[in-house]
Order: sequence, then structure tokens, then C-alpha cells
Amino acid sequence: MSAQTEFRASKKTKIKDVDAGKKPLSSGDKEKDKQQTLALASEIGLQQEMLYAGQHHKLLVVLQGTDTSGKDGTVKGVFNSINPQGISIVGFKAPSTIEKAHDYLWRIHQQVPIAGEITVFNRSHYEDVLVTRVHNWIDSGECERRYAHICDFERMLAETGTTIIKFLLHISKDEQARRLQERINDPEKNWKFDPQDLEERQSWDAYQELFASAIQATDADHAPWYVIPADSKTHRNLAIASVVLETLQALKLKPPPANPALAGLKIV
Amino acid sequence: MSAQTEFRASKKTKIKDVDAGKKPLSSGDKEKDKQQTLALASEIGLQQEMLYAGQHHKLLVVLQGTDTSGKDGTVKGVFNSINPQGISIVGFKAPSTIEKAHDYLWRIHQQVPIAGEITVFNRSHYEDVLVTRVHNWIDSGECERRYAHICDFERMLAETGTTIIKFLLHISKDEQARRLQERINDPEKNWKFDPQDLEERQSWDAYQELFASAIQATDADHAPWYVIPADSKTHRNLAIASVVLETLQALKLKPPPANPALAGLKIV
Repeated sequence: MSAQTEFRASKKTKIKDVDAGKKPLSSGDKEKDKQQTLALASEIGLQQEMLYAGQHHKLLVVLQGTDTSGKDGTVKGVFNSINPQGISIVGFKAPSTIEKAHDYLWRIHQQVPIAGEITVFNRSHYEDVLVTRVHNWIDSGECERRYAHICDFERMLAETGTTIIKFLLHISKDEQARRLQERINDPEKNWKFDPQDLEERQSWDAYQELFASAIQATDADHAPWYVIPADSKTHRNLAIASVVLETLQALKLKPPPANPALAGLKIV
Repeated sequence: MSAQTEFRASKKTKIKDVDAGKKPLSSGDKEKDKQQTLALASEIGLQQEMLYAGQHHKLLVVLQGTDTSGKDGTVKGVFNSINPQGISIVGFKAPSTIEKAHDYLWRIHQQVPIAGEITVFNRSHYEDVLVTRVHNWIDSGECERRYAHICDFERMLAETGTTIIKFLLHISKDEQARRLQERINDPEKNWKFDPQDLEERQSWDAYQELFASAIQATDADHAPWYVIPADSKTHRNLAIASVVLETLQALKLKPPPANPALAGLKIV
């Protein structure tokens, strides 16, 4: 089974029922899995060179997940063998005053990939239907309207040449406790600990419900959601690298054709 | 001798007299030099994590050089072990209509690094005193005024917390011929060949003169130029990685202090 099929969300996916610890792609040997991920990452790098050469396709990768779910680690583990020239990593933090004065898709639209490039959103417009709804900054009617905006926006991007893949990094509540505790116990990691994370943790169940409803509302063949069991960092990277590579391979990228005008030309 | 001292341009540097083939940092063994560069790149990655953690310093790296001088290769070889989250690679191409309607520093200013980040300019505002002057789109008076603007701009960046280092990748005219010829001879590399490069090659000497005058006009201790012999790709990466690492080490970065409020905290 392809990784795409393995992890693709369905309209019925209940996030809280997905086992965050499962490792369907694992060889059973952690070292081997790491080597396999390195090989995939390197192959993604080769595919990206052709994407860049062709100056035609655009790939948008969306990473979502609770705090500590491993979005930064994914960026580092999966997209680190790509020529940095052809990839753009965009982290969306709390919106600035100017950003807030615009519609919520304004800052997102500015960062979508250009032809020949891969862009990774570390958090995204989905924060505007997750965080906002959990905190009751928007009501359910506004949330539904936003799902519709997002569907429209993503369809427009797809129809104008952007390949979109969306990952939910799914960890268990216990695993989040372990990861937060690590940041507390190691003084050199204290700077990574944001007290806000504890507050968000209070809303764990609400987030799981919202992930499910956001996926149901916005999953589409042109903008598929993949739910990645992410308690194991090694397997998470393996899984995401596999889906990314399969997605690129499906584009059937090739180096641009030779230029006949150059045949036999000698530089002096 | 430090790499910074080895390659630092002086007011008297005549680019055309610098031997593009020299390899002062080489061990004499290419494989060893590559391993050494990997080790430096990995150390740069660790430094960058502290830069990111501190959210204070900003590093701006400017790469300039003729076509085929290895700017893309430098990005790939020196900055590829950094968490992509903390580095931004900006390639400046021919300005768009909107960019042209602004002053030439407008699009540059938008891309300078934020606190905690490294930004690499692959080409930069120096194109606006090099290409423009070679083609006589600006006269010598305008060129002098722009040197002054650039000095002012870079001093402002430095005084507001940006560490700036500028590299001229210096290759010989023969080496450029070899590299262009490679792109012609290999059909799969034809897409990398831009006929414009041949036209620019006609102005080789003019570019060498202008590099020298731009360096003379804009070299400063807060925005130093390094002239990197770049006929050898391996040694070029070794040299640039060495200067970048020395620059970061001089910032004496440390992980932020432990947070006493977290001592003994248990996540439930």
C-alpha cells in the first residue's frame, strides 16, 4: 500500500481514535528507518531540482498539529536535503497588528509557492479555524464560513497549478506531557518552553474534535489531508517523507529538454 | 591565521590580481577538505540554533560573483545543515515592474533577517551598482551616489543589530568557460544555460574593475568583504564555511538561561 493511501484521512476519520503510536511503515529497526528516511529525503532533493528546472509546478506542504507534535522536527528531518534555494519554510505565528487588520487569508496568500518551488507552512490558515474556535474568538457560524473560504482558496490554488498536501501530526496526550516535561527538566531547553502551551493543553479534547471537523470540511483530492501518527519521531519523518516523495513522483517530473540551439557551441 | 584575516578584502584589493585557483585552507586532500566542510557546516547549524534561541542577533550573508561563480553551490554546500526554519535564502532576479517603480533598496530592505535568523542574499543590492553600471544604465555619478546609499543602509542595519558579511566568489575567465561549456555539453544541464551569460561574459574585465571599486567603496569593519578564490568548489565551500563560523563564534552565542519558574514543574 502506498503511504498516501495508508495515511489519507477520510470524511469519517476520528482523530482521537487514531493510534498515535502506530508505525505501519517501520522496518522494526529504528536505525534502518532513519537510513530509509535519509534516502527518501535525498530523493526528494533530486525531485525538487527537476521541479525547479521545470519552473512550472508548485508544491505547498501544510504542517499542523498540537504544540510539541513535531512540526519543526519534520522540517528538519524531511526537507533538509533540498537545495535551500528551491524551498521556502514559512512559520505563521500570532498575527501582527497589520496582519490582523486584513482578512486572515491575506498573509497566507502572500507566501504561497511560486513556480518551481516547494513551500512548507509550519502552521497555516488552519490556525484561524482551530485556535480561534477553541478560544471562542469566532462562533460556529463563522467557523463554517471560514471552512468554505479555505476550500475555495485551496481549490483556486490547485486550479492555478499548486499541488497541495496537508499533514496533521497526531500525538497522544501522554506523549505531549513527556515532551513538555523534557523542556522543563533540561535547563538548556527551558527557552523552548512556552507557558501558553500548558494553557492550550487544557483544551486537548476540543482541539482533537476540531482537527476532525476541519479535516472533514476541507479534505479534497486536490488538497488531501494525511493524519500522521507522530509519537515516534523517526516514524513520523519516514511517513511524511514517503507521502511527499510519492506526491512528487506522481508529477512525473523530468529535466527540461535539451536546447538544440546549444548543440556544438564552444565558449571562448 | 583566521579565515577572516586570510580572505578579508582591503581598500587596495585588485580583484584581477587575486589568484582564483589558490587554496590556502586546503589540507592538500580533497576528501579531507570535504569532510572538514561538513563538520564546519554542522557546527554552523549548532550556532544557528543558539542564534534562534536568543532571538537577538541577525546575520546577513551576501553572495556576489559572476555567472557560474558558484553562488547556488555555496548555498547548498555551506548552509544545508541548518534547520531550514531559521534560515532564509533570498535570490534577487531582474526586478519586477513593481520593484522597478520603487527605489532599488526597497525590495532588499523587505528581506533583511529578523532577530534570531540568518538570511543569505544570492545576488543583492550590489547588482544595482554592477549590472546597471556595466550596461551604462546608470552613469558614474549615480554609481557613486549608490555606493553612498549602500554604505548608509548597511551601517543602519549593523547599528540595529545585524551582523553583515559579504563574499565575492572570484573565478577565472577560463574556469567560467569550462563551467558554461559543461552546461552546453550535457543536454540535461541545458536548462541551466542562459544565453544572457555569454553576453555578460563579453564584459568580463569591466565586471572585475567594478567588483574592485564596489569593494573599495563599501568595505567596512561592520560590513566586511571577503574575496574567495572559487575555481575549486571544494575549497570555496571550505573557505566560506570557515568565515561564516568564525563570524558566528565571535558573537559568543549561548543558550538562553534556565527559567527558574520552571524548576520542579510537573506536567499532568
